[in-house]
Amino acid sequence: MSIRIPYDTVFSTVKQAFLQMGLSEEQAQQCAGIHTESSLEGIESHGLNRVPRFAEYVQKGWVDLNARPELVGAKGAVENYDGHLGIGVLNATFCMDRAIALAKEHGIGCVALKNTTHWMRGGSYAWQAAQAGFIGISWTNTESCMPMWGSKEPGVGNNPFCIAIPRKNGPIVLDMAMSQYAYGKLGVYRLAGKQLPFPGGFDKDGNLTSDPGAIEASGRILPTGYWKGSGMAIALDLAAAAMANGRTGADLDREARGSCTGCCQIFLAYDPYLFGDEESIQARWDDRVAAADATAPDREGGHVTCPGERTAATRARNMAEGIVVDEQIWQQILDLAAGKTDVKDISSACVLDNMTEEKKQ
Amino acid sequence: MSIRIPYDTVFSTVKQAFLQMGLSEEQAQQCAGIHTESSLEGIESHGLNRVPRFAEYVQKGWVDLNARPELVGAKGAVENYDGHLGIGVLNATFCMDRAIALAKEHGIGCVALKNTTHWMRGGSYAWQAAQAGFIGISWTNTESCMPMWGSKEPGVGNNPFCIAIPRKNGPIVLDMAMSQYAYGKLGVYRLAGKQLPFPGGFDKDGNLTSDPGAIEASGRILPTGYWKGSGMAIALDLAAAAMANGRTGADLDREARGSCTGCCQIFLAYDPYLFGDEESIQARWDDRVAAADATAPDREGGHVTCPGERTAATRARNMAEGIVVDEQIWQQILDLAAGKTDVKDISSACVLDNMTEEKKQ
Repeated sequence: MSIRIPYDTVFSTVKQAFLQMGLSEEQAQQCAGIHTESSLEGIESHGLNRVPRFAEYVQKGWVDLNARPELVGAKGAVENYDGHLGIGVLNATFCMDRAIALAKEHGIGCVALKNTTHWMRGGSYAWQAAQAGFIGISWTNTESCMPMWGSKEPGVGNNPFCIAIPRKNGPIVLDMAMSQYAYGKLGVYRLAGKQLPFPGGFDKDGNLTSDPGAIEASGRILPTGYWKGSGMAIALDLAAAAMANGRTGADLDREARGSCTGCCQIFLAYDPYLFGDEESIQARWDDRVAAADATAPDREGGHVTCPGERTAATRARNMAEGIVVDEQIWQQILDLAAGKTDVKDISSACVLDNMTEEKKQ
Repeated sequence: MSIRIPYDTVFSTVKQAFLQMGLSEEQAQQCAGIHTESSLEGIESHGLNRVPRFAEYVQKGWVDLNARPELVGAKGAVENYDGHLGIGVLNATFCMDRAIALAKEHGIGCVALKNTTHWMRGGSYAWQAAQAGFIGISWTNTESCMPMWGSKEPGVGNNPFCIAIPRKNGPIVLDMAMSQYAYGKLGVYRLAGKQLPFPGGFDKDGNLTSDPGAIEASGRILPTGYWKGSGMAIALDLAAAAMANGRTGADLDREARGSCTGCCQIFLAYDPYLFGDEESIQARWDDRVAAADATAPDREGGHVTCPGERTAATRARNMAEGIVVDEQIWQQILDLAAGKTDVKDISSACVLDNMTEEKKQ
């Protein structure tokens, strides 16, 4: 069951939970902001659901609360940081900021981060670039959680990839994992007794299926676009590990610490007004988005949108009515804020009311 | 019916065809190389099949044989060129070369090309980067040929996206359009009387289908990964048009010249040995690829590979036994080489023997 909690209550409670976990005032402020924003924008799976999970990471020693990103190499428009297993969202925010600073100087900026931890919602850093007025591209590698195309066992990460367009009339932000569905999503559908809207993997006999439980049992989640998502996932992994001089997904698998601990992330920023003036670029974007959105919907009452376009409405509604959170997750956050430490991640067992995210984009 | 023709015969005949179309000796040499290489590597659809199609473009005035890319802006690690509707493959080759030169100086290099023409096989420029020892990323926008997710009429291009990893034991090269299947592929399956291996679009009643003819009739080709490919396609379009200060897909639709005439393309190159030494980066890549390839195949006799890995074997076989070409296409190329000018594109009506490209990656 989901409930709605006012933004200010969510933010202050989450911040208190982070303080109780041992984060500094500044760290707790930033982390609470990012987790709260993700849920505010409708991405509960990577927002409030991840607060108890993060507590677990800290308990397991996967995250070093005292670590800060360290510059370990630089050339021209590129910088390389060692994240020292610090807080993933803070490392990532820092690196996108650096990429933007480099782009101001060189037209394009690239920051390659190694040895970091889970960045939670990849889209956070794309939105960060967009809000600063820059085109952003970012991706991460992860441990293997998805079979390569043609395999029946996990062999590659789902390696999320993001693109941000700083359109003033609403940024366009793509945040796309290389699996058709997240494992968390399968659990949500299974617990709700529903089939996936489209096949999301193979059952143990190798048949394509929309049954979430059968996919959880086989571990054979489907790459997005079959062979395409599989190919893009391995290419992103190879690129990230070389660009950052860090771990590949295979290295992460061997270390087996879980949840992206020690992974690489890439942050690219590009000044969109290098060659065209701001007014004409913005007009071109508005025109392009309007043309896409004006195409005939495939069903009565349907409405075509570009990724990120509905976010403003989601934010506004959640700001007015309260942020949607699973009541069990909320109780865990309250427990954490009260100083309890025996909280376990239960996010994949939470039934969210909103199961239509595949229609949002 | 496909036949096999020796490499040297293909190259010299295609070069002669380009000379007859009015290309200079140097242009014909380069273009013949790229079209022949694409077929040599098994990508007939964008190799020899495109020679008659290119002849049609020239006849229609979509390509200016005398145009050369012109530098119209530069800042730091970025350059902006106007392609002046010159030969797409030559503009693209030039720009990836420039991106590599910029990467040598700045760690990363980005060339944003506007007002160019069809680059044929996107992977050509990724292979070019890989062969020069650089990580490459490139993409193009195109006119609308695919419905946005939730729409029943074309609203976005299939905007191919490429990533190249310069692994010495075989480059890993992703070349991925944002539609699950190309229209050309649908025609091939239909003419062979076969169903697609997976649903490739919707029929006119909005049902997901594997029937190629039903998708051709409805025009409702499926984005790769449903909403994901749709979102990535529009984001790539918006990014390319701003980065290059050129046309969006909506601009291309209004001008309605067809086949990417006037489009934007982005070329990124990155020096993979900026922060790690060559030996350790190559070893990490070999290890990562080996781990992926060693995962259990999903069927008896299957073998998992990363994108591009099978290319060396395809090249070797085609070099030894001759390049595969549809006999009607080959006759057209012979006609062009003999100076005939009334050749029309028939590539989508050609039944290629090899219909398993979705298994290649």
